[in-house]
Amino acid sequence: MTSRRISTPLKIGGVAVGAGAPIAVQSMTKTDTRDIAATINQIKELEDCGCEIVRVAVPDKEAAEGISAIRKSISLPLIADIHFDYRLALAALQAGADGLRLNPGNIHDKAQIARIAGAAKERGIPIRIGVNAGSLPPNFEPDAPLVSRMVDMVLEEIGFLESLDFNLIKVSLKAFDVPTTIQAYQLIADKIPYPLHLGITEAGLPRAGAIRSAVGIGILLYQGIGDTIRVSLTTHPCEEVFVAYEILKSLGLRQRGPTLVSCPSCGRAEVDVISLAESVNKHLQKVTKPIKVAVMGCVVNGPGEAKDADIGIACGKGKGAIFRKGKVVGMVSEENFLEALMAEIDSLFRS
Amino acid sequence: MTSRRISTPLKIGGVAVGAGAPIAVQSMTKTDTRDIAATINQIKELEDCGCEIVRVAVPDKEAAEGISAIRKSISLPLIADIHFDYRLALAALQAGADGLRLNPGNIHDKAQIARIAGAAKERGIPIRIGVNAGSLPPNFEPDAPLVSRMVDMVLEEIGFLESLDFNLIKVSLKAFDVPTTIQAYQLIADKIPYPLHLGITEAGLPRAGAIRSAVGIGILLYQGIGDTIRVSLTTHPCEEVFVAYEILKSLGLRQRGPTLVSCPSCGRAEVDVISLAESVNKHLQKVTKPIKVAVMGCVVNGPGEAKDADIGIACGKGKGAIFRKGKVVGMVSEENFLEALMAEIDSLFRS
Repeated sequence: MTSRRISTPLKIGGVAVGAGAPIAVQSMTKTDTRDIAATINQIKELEDCGCEIVRVAVPDKEAAEGISAIRKSISLPLIADIHFDYRLALAALQAGADGLRLNPGNIHDKAQIARIAGAAKERGIPIRIGVNAGSLPPNFEPDAPLVSRMVDMVLEEIGFLESLDFNLIKVSLKAFDVPTTIQAYQLIADKIPYPLHLGITEAGLPRAGAIRSAVGIGILLYQGIGDTIRVSLTTHPCEEVFVAYEILKSLGLRQRGPTLVSCPSCGRAEVDVISLAESVNKHLQKVTKPIKVAVMGCVVNGPGEAKDADIGIACGKGKGAIFRKGKVVGMVSEENFLEALMAEIDSLFRS
Repeated sequence: MTSRRISTPLKIGGVAVGAGAPIAVQSMTKTDTRDIAATINQIKELEDCGCEIVRVAVPDKEAAEGISAIRKSISLPLIADIHFDYRLALAALQAGADGLRLNPGNIHDKAQIARIAGAAKERGIPIRIGVNAGSLPPNFEPDAPLVSRMVDMVLEEIGFLESLDFNLIKVSLKAFDVPTTIQAYQLIADKIPYPLHLGITEAGLPRAGAIRSAVGIGILLYQGIGDTIRVSLTTHPCEEVFVAYEILKSLGLRQRGPTLVSCPSCGRAEVDVISLAESVNKHLQKVTKPIKVAVMGCVVNGPGEAKDADIGIACGKGKGAIFRKGKVVGMVSEENFLEALMAEIDSLFRS
């Protein structure tokens, strides 16, 4: 794994981003931002499921002004997502947004961008330059390859912000296509010092979209690229947060909640591994501390993998060996597998 | 994306593996192999969902002999998964297995391995040397790092097979830990010419295991490594096949069935994007031809992404624009979104 690219430090509200800070997990509300109660409620759900920075759409003045009331009721840093109308950025800043996301594909006027940057600088508020492959202006380098157009659009916007002495900058270059996204981030990573926010845009429903996001974001993180991530899925935003943490956990970059090691089951298994793993997983749902639990169906990899876990079971015919931190702590009969495993987990948390 | 590592060619039954052949999707039955009817039934399900090579556990003589009857009723190449007892490998070959998987961690005796290799060579049957981090013999290089132990175990086994003039070899080095797995494959890829079978072992239940598998397998594929893949999930094996294809599709390495581009929805959406995307997805379930369908909730990225799709809809307030191969083919009102989109998809298949 490539060592992490060290970017310039930023603060989004109280959350450090860049310069080696833990990779922050973001999501976005799917409520109508003008429905303040519903938006606050969803942000609280996001906070509970581990989201660290939340973004809200700001399609009009009422939504921008609503940020003031929303922010008073939540503890996550709040980013205002702005398209088309620079006045919405100014109103969001006035309402107390902790960050702005601007899409340079649809706010073109330099004087307008300068007004936003001036107001953001005054308040020390970072701006994410968020380019999407789907919203590049058609007349911007129309004959260049898509990746170059994305990168050049970011560089042009950065150049202008820097000319205004504004450098509280974060950058994203999202596309649905994974190789396009990876190439765009790789190119920009070498050209600018700012933190990068990763995502695969419009990745779809969770079953396929989680996989697409894991491949794209995972490859970039493995290359040391990325300071914050958002998984975009067509579902409740807490699933985005779950997927984000699973990507980070799989590369050892963050820890959160249980990790279940379980064998796929095969014709060798003498117990119903799938049901047992599902039951164990259900019991682990409320655990937020990192713990590695192994459910193994036979002796082939069972003891080996189970030993590596905090708690594990390697099942044989009618009975199983319970492991704890590498040591067998008991043999249990099949009807007690779940109970014995959960008792060990509970005692681990008590110790 | 790194260009693909070119490995030596193999044939597993009728399926070409290595030497630039399409990356083959494998899975494994979870039935008791001795239950021939259930095993045949699950293999037929796997064939229907796109599996290209299937493996069955061979825990005893009855299972090995069952391969003969199973193979007569299926059309997928069948690999026998062997641990501990070399006689089961010989029996599986005799019963007509198209490939063997041997775990060098638990068949140590050189004379036994030589007997297997001799019988496999006689029939032209490939052997996968399948090392798992969880089943390395404790006395094999006990003080070396895990990755070196995995790689050295493979190299030792290959050296012995080559000394017998046996080279119908495929290799896997699976671990639950993603960076360990990646490092092991990277090391072996430079040292041997044989095809590599990728997987993250014991990846767990599908929600988290698909993500872990996508990160690990995706990173290796992006580096040009991998000739066949198997996603190991604690669930029905067809979900393993689905995840495998989604990983391959996200990197443009294979195409199969629909790809749904859909926005995550946000406070800007004026229609229920999540429900619409779910309905469209449900209608697309039976499609196996590659088709890219976009469901976008607003005008920000909507038209841009929808234009890139075979068929797309960019929704606005109460109405939406239907795109086909980059051209607007109609405006529809909200109550007709699904019907209009499906009609366009059907007409695309007719054309």
